Amino acid sequence: MSLDSKHSKGGFTLPGESGYEKLTLELADKWGADVIRDSDGTVLSDEILDSGYGIYSTICIIRDHNEWANANKDKLQQSFLMTQPKVADDSYVIFHLIDDFFDQQFVVNDSKESMKYWQVFDRTTGQEISNNFWTYEKEAGNVIVNNVIPYHSYTVSFLAYRIWEEISMYNHTTNNWDKEHLMPIDPVYPETQEYMLSWLKNWCETHPATTVVRFTSMFYNFVWIWGSSERNRNLFTDWGSYDFTVSPKMLDNFAERYGYKLTAEDFINKGALHVTHQPPVKTQLDYMDFVNSFVVEFGRKLVDMVHEYGKKAYVFYDDSWVGVEPYSKRFKDFNFDGLIKCVFSGYEVRLCAGADIETHELRLHPYLFPVGLGGLPTFAPGGDPTRDAKEYWNHTRRALLRAKIDRIGLGGYLHLVENYPDFVDYIAKISDEFRTIRDLHTNGSPYTLDVNVAVLHSWGSLRSWTLSGHFHETFMNDLIHINEALSGLPVNVSFISFEDVKTTDLSKYQVIINAGAQGTAWSGGDNWKDDSIVAVLTKWVYDGGTFIGVNEPSAVDGYNTTFRMAPVLGVDKNTSPYVCHGKWAFDKTEVEGLIPEGSFVPERCHVHLTDGNAKVLAEKDGNPLFTVNHIGKGKGIYLSTFETNVLNNRLLLNILMYAANMPLAQKYITDNSNMECAFYPADKRLIVINNSDAVQSTTVKTEFGDKKFENVAPFDTVIIQL
Amino acid sequence: MSLDSKHSKGGFTLPGESGYEKLTLELADKWGADVIRDSDGTVLSDEILDSGYGIYSTICIIRDHNEWANANKDKLQQSFLMTQPKVADDSYVIFHLIDDFFDQQFVVNDSKESMKYWQVFDRTTGQEISNNFWTYEKEAGNVIVNNVIPYHSYTVSFLAYRIWEEISMYNHTTNNWDKEHLMPIDPVYPETQEYMLSWLKNWCETHPATTVVRFTSMFYNFVWIWGSSERNRNLFTDWGSYDFTVSPKMLDNFAERYGYKLTAEDFINKGALHVTHQPPVKTQLDYMDFVNSFVVEFGRKLVDMVHEYGKKAYVFYDDSWVGVEPYSKRFKDFNFDGLIKCVFSGYEVRLCAGADIETHELRLHPYLFPVGLGGLPTFAPGGDPTRDAKEYWNHTRRALLRAKIDRIGLGGYLHLVENYPDFVDYIAKISDEFRTIRDLHTNGSPYTLDVNVAVLHSWGSLRSWTLSGHFHETFMNDLIHINEALSGLPVNVSFISFEDVKTTDLSKYQVIINAGAQGTAWSGGDNWKDDSIVAVLTKWVYDGGTFIGVNEPSAVDGYNTTFRMAPVLGVDKNTSPYVCHGKWAFDKTEVEGLIPEGSFVPERCHVHLTDGNAKVLAEKDGNPLFTVNHIGKGKGIYLSTFETNVLNNRLLLNILMYAANMPLAQKYITDNSNMECAFYPADKRLIVINNSDAVQSTTVKTEFGDKKFENVAPFDTVIIQL
Repeated sequence: MSLDSKHSKGGFTLPGESGYEKLTLELADKWGADVIRDSDGTVLSDEILDSGYGIYSTICIIRDHNEWANANKDKLQQSFLMTQPKVADDSYVIFHLIDDFFDQQFVVNDSKESMKYWQVFDRTTGQEISNNFWTYEKEAGNVIVNNVIPYHSYTVSFLAYRIWEEISMYNHTTNNWDKEHLMPIDPVYPETQEYMLSWLKNWCETHPATTVVRFTSMFYNFVWIWGSSERNRNLFTDWGSYDFTVSPKMLDNFAERYGYKLTAEDFINKGALHVTHQPPVKTQLDYMDFVNSFVVEFGRKLVDMVHEYGKKAYVFYDDSWVGVEPYSKRFKDFNFDGLIKCVFSGYEVRLCAGADIETHELRLHPYLFPVGLGGLPTFAPGGDPTRDAKEYWNHTRRALLRAKIDRIGLGGYLHLVENYPDFVDYIAKISDEFRTIRDLHTNGSPYTLDVNVAVLHSWGSLRSWTLSGHFHETFMNDLIHINEALSGLPVNVSFISFEDVKTTDLSKYQVIINAGAQGTAWSGGDNWKDDSIVAVLTKWVYDGGTFIGVNEPSAVDGYNTTFRMAPVLGVDKNTSPYVCHGKWAFDKTEVEGLIPEGSFVPERCHVHLTDGNAKVLAEKDGNPLFTVNHIGKGKGIYLSTFETNVLNNRLLLNILMYAANMPLAQKYITDNSNMECAFYPADKRLIVINNSDAVQSTTVKTEFGDKKFENVAPFDTVIIQL
Repeated sequence: MSLDSKHSKGGFTLPGESGYEKLTLELADKWGADVIRDSDGTVLSDEILDSGYGIYSTICIIRDHNEWANANKDKLQQSFLMTQPKVADDSYVIFHLIDDFFDQQFVVNDSKESMKYWQVFDRTTGQEISNNFWTYEKEAGNVIVNNVIPYHSYTVSFLAYRIWEEISMYNHTTNNWDKEHLMPIDPVYPETQEYMLSWLKNWCETHPATTVVRFTSMFYNFVWIWGSSERNRNLFTDWGSYDFTVSPKMLDNFAERYGYKLTAEDFINKGALHVTHQPPVKTQLDYMDFVNSFVVEFGRKLVDMVHEYGKKAYVFYDDSWVGVEPYSKRFKDFNFDGLIKCVFSGYEVRLCAGADIETHELRLHPYLFPVGLGGLPTFAPGGDPTRDAKEYWNHTRRALLRAKIDRIGLGGYLHLVENYPDFVDYIAKISDEFRTIRDLHTNGSPYTLDVNVAVLHSWGSLRSWTLSGHFHETFMNDLIHINEALSGLPVNVSFISFEDVKTTDLSKYQVIINAGAQGTAWSGGDNWKDDSIVAVLTKWVYDGGTFIGVNEPSAVDGYNTTFRMAPVLGVDKNTSPYVCHGKWAFDKTEVEGLIPEGSFVPERCHVHLTDGNAKVLAEKDGNPLFTVNHIGKGKGIYLSTFETNVLNNRLLLNILMYAANMPLAQKYITDNSNMECAFYPADKRLIVINNSDAVQSTTVKTEFGDKKFENVAPFDTVIIQL
């Protein structure tokens, strides 16, 4: 970095560790920390607390209260569970309810209030069985279904208490902890709320050194259901689903507010549960909204108390984040002072930066743990934490150019870095780099192309940037690749829902992207059965917009085309009847400079040209992978899928400029696809980053002439003053 | 062949050619012909007619009557056509109807009777537009739709006369003919019937030498719609669809008989038309039944006339075969004397052999044409007809061992073989081989394992053995590979429908196979929504049966599992919600001898174990490809797909024996998977065939001790007397 490349301080949260006070203070200096934090499983000694640094303290309000929990076992958190289906090959079917589940995580809640929510289904017919026809043997924990139809399959849905808070359970298992199992308590009960408030009051009073209370996070974990068999321990995980918020009390409260009752099946959903990747249904959206309102309402009381003690309140956007919803309209009502997001990827940077809150802080990966989230070693034999940190930095840095983040930091056990001096040096380097980039935003936003892109999916802005969890958990979805690419591109990005299509003015967007597999939330599922959606978007294209469809955009069965936007895209999916239909032959069309050397469109969906008019820009064995269809004043662009990487990200930028009828040679775009740049007009500063592992050079057109950047080192950053 | 390997005579139909009398008689002797035939485009001279051979004459009753056709243009055959959808970006949409279609094949039928069947659809809503809102400009051939909803898509469905009989059109195009275009006349009109009967009468009287009238075939061709653009000439082809049988008259007759009216949309089906690979709908089955009854009724009159002249009547099961349906209950009512099927594959041999008729004759490939059906050269530079003949013979021979065929023959231009002496010799060899194999069946059926296999699909016995056309047209369907493998295996094979599942006794079957992609006729589509189907099959498995599911068996959306037979199979499809569900880990299970060396199960569908109980016998990167689930007294077996080849055919046989709880080492099975055998108990003869291109040896266990076959030449056949 040729400008501002001095060692600087601030905006860095260091995980301190008791017993390693010297290391803590040494690294606080080296990394420019202004704040020291504890972590799950670490404490800070007085020496650290009194060292003059700001102090973040981690609180997980729903666990570590086992004494109270043991005395209030009817106020533990719960979940609906469904047994494996059983075939009726006798006159009755018997289910030992807990058989399929990890008995250290779940116990059956067979209270009267719970049992009114239990359901038995004939899964062959899809019909519920009246409770006249099944009985529960409390001692044995069995449900017996009588009057069965021979050779039909049956299931029982029931409520279970969760007796081991899942993050704690995960850490036990992963890090071989041997401690008391912490139980999650449920704030849905007034008694629990009262306990939590008094506990927090006491905590604030006994932690005067703490400047920021870091909530991890609020009350309800993302769903994580473990099974009884070691062959299938992880039965279900979804980062965005609300299954772990249920209880008879919550459901009764919901019914009172919404005027209708939810059933077990509203959660169990034939055993599939509600995966964030599927289009949400109305009952689900109502329930999410209800839980969100409850979490905000009671959360605000905790935040107010923290504020009363002169401390700030930050919230961590993972683990027990369910109900927090930083992109809901209520988020401001928490009155949080900061949002902390752990990041591997650029889209997570934008997710954090886009929340309406004072302080945006990132928790960088790798965490200072022996093993990373993906299960591979980091600070352990076989691990290379510096390589990992470089990779994640390379993903996140480009997003940091586009949107302001206020703070970064690490988590975990500080002592683990002792044997990794290169890691210590690398963190020092990127901490300085972070502060420099942060400061570029001080006097205004970076220059952005006049390209307004809307990403259209079922969740709309509620799931801006993210799908459901981290990139390595969602890579099989086309859209996360698109979002990751977009996170560092010099364009304006919005996330819109199908309701938004009908109710807002689309003319502000030059480009609308719909990317995903048929039936998913990202493609849109049955939303595409709404004719007005199709007509509005078609008109918008005729008026000059560009609709970009990826994989199975607008796909739904039951019409003359599977892609409802086929008239715009000029391509449609090859469904099985189309094996008997001829396919249009085509010659490949070249658009000069559009497809950067080394970039590519992988094959995912098989499509055919509808009326033969779409131009094919890339194909594989006759299958169109990338097409452009000019229609009205606008265009339909189709991509078989999109895979984010350095060169493909540039391909997407080119496609967006082409979509917006813009020449590809724009100001403030590098002419080397391995590099990206950002220009901050207020300070006339231009930053260029090398995203590749090789030395690169580039020229950037600016309003002050062409600027050359020669031999930029691998992964390096250069800033110049124009 | 060590027994009966002398040159023999009979059961061979030779295509004679005028001008090549010497060649004709020479080859008739060399190939052991007893009959000489003409072909489309050839005639027989008196010298041939008087040579003492039986004479087959080819008649295509619906074409080659252009004089009559020109005088009766309202009695040409017709079809429904649908325009390409158009987006309404103005207050009206205009369609020039014939724009998308080959104007040498179609002209709009805008008669009053026709126009009452025309339909305009808003394809965005799926709703028909009342004919108050559209008009037809007869002179221009345009339909104008008014009162459109902006940016919706519209289509027009209309009736068109077909002015070029399609086989003739194909031959013109492929063989560069320059002759008058033959028009297809429609026997639905009494006038046409009268003309045809009088024409046939005259023909019979003027062709005294003819011993067999070979009908090609009856009246209606399989559907073959050509487009206006050379970039997309072949718009739609389906060997089994009835689109080319329609006319206002046929539809009116239908309404009279069935009491309800069909519409254009009953054929157009949103533009997809009715592909045989899709599950048939009721209107379609009713209409097929109606057309079949008509074709049989009028066909019988033609057959009777032929019989009156002392000639036999054979029918060719291709081209204008639609409505003939050799597996319908009415087929006997034609009173045909023979059925001729052109074959590339074993399943086509069984298809012919299984028809209830006196004489079963095969037309071997390659035809004596410069170019084959697949478009590649045969008797032309670059072609190798002997190689092709060997390949087809290798496919068909194993089926000839299992079921009796009475005759074989060739078609085309005999003079083309002059430059291919090796082809002439090879046909001589396999003609002798054919006669030997045919004679093995004379005194009784071959020994068959006690394994009764039912193939379950939407068409049931109506589409026994075939799907829709030849192997190279249908190879993408799992089932054709299964049928091809079964065609040469020593098991009993039935084809059953979902109705049969409910109405017949399944206990006679040890194995039921359901093989295909979700939503296809072969998997079964919505038939699987019938709970009783699921229950009956599940009970049958609990009672000891084995259900074999291939690719997406019993697959339908809307239930707790995609595979309705998942409780039996122990596996289910990975649908998109299941990305968040854990998968059972498994160790691969070995069943000794089950999977022959060199055989394999390719990957097609991605599945997971449902309850973890199914055993995985083959997998790829954790995806189960071949599983066995023991349940009740029976089994569920799953295959990701099946690909027919020499070794995989043996794999299927092993699976069937394993499914039937039979030890794999059975009598009259070769111990070398490259070879197959058949034993004819009546004559105590054992035939062994080498299906491979290498020398092979095998031992066959028999009730008379082990029999060794050493060093059998590539593709050779050996017969011994026990």
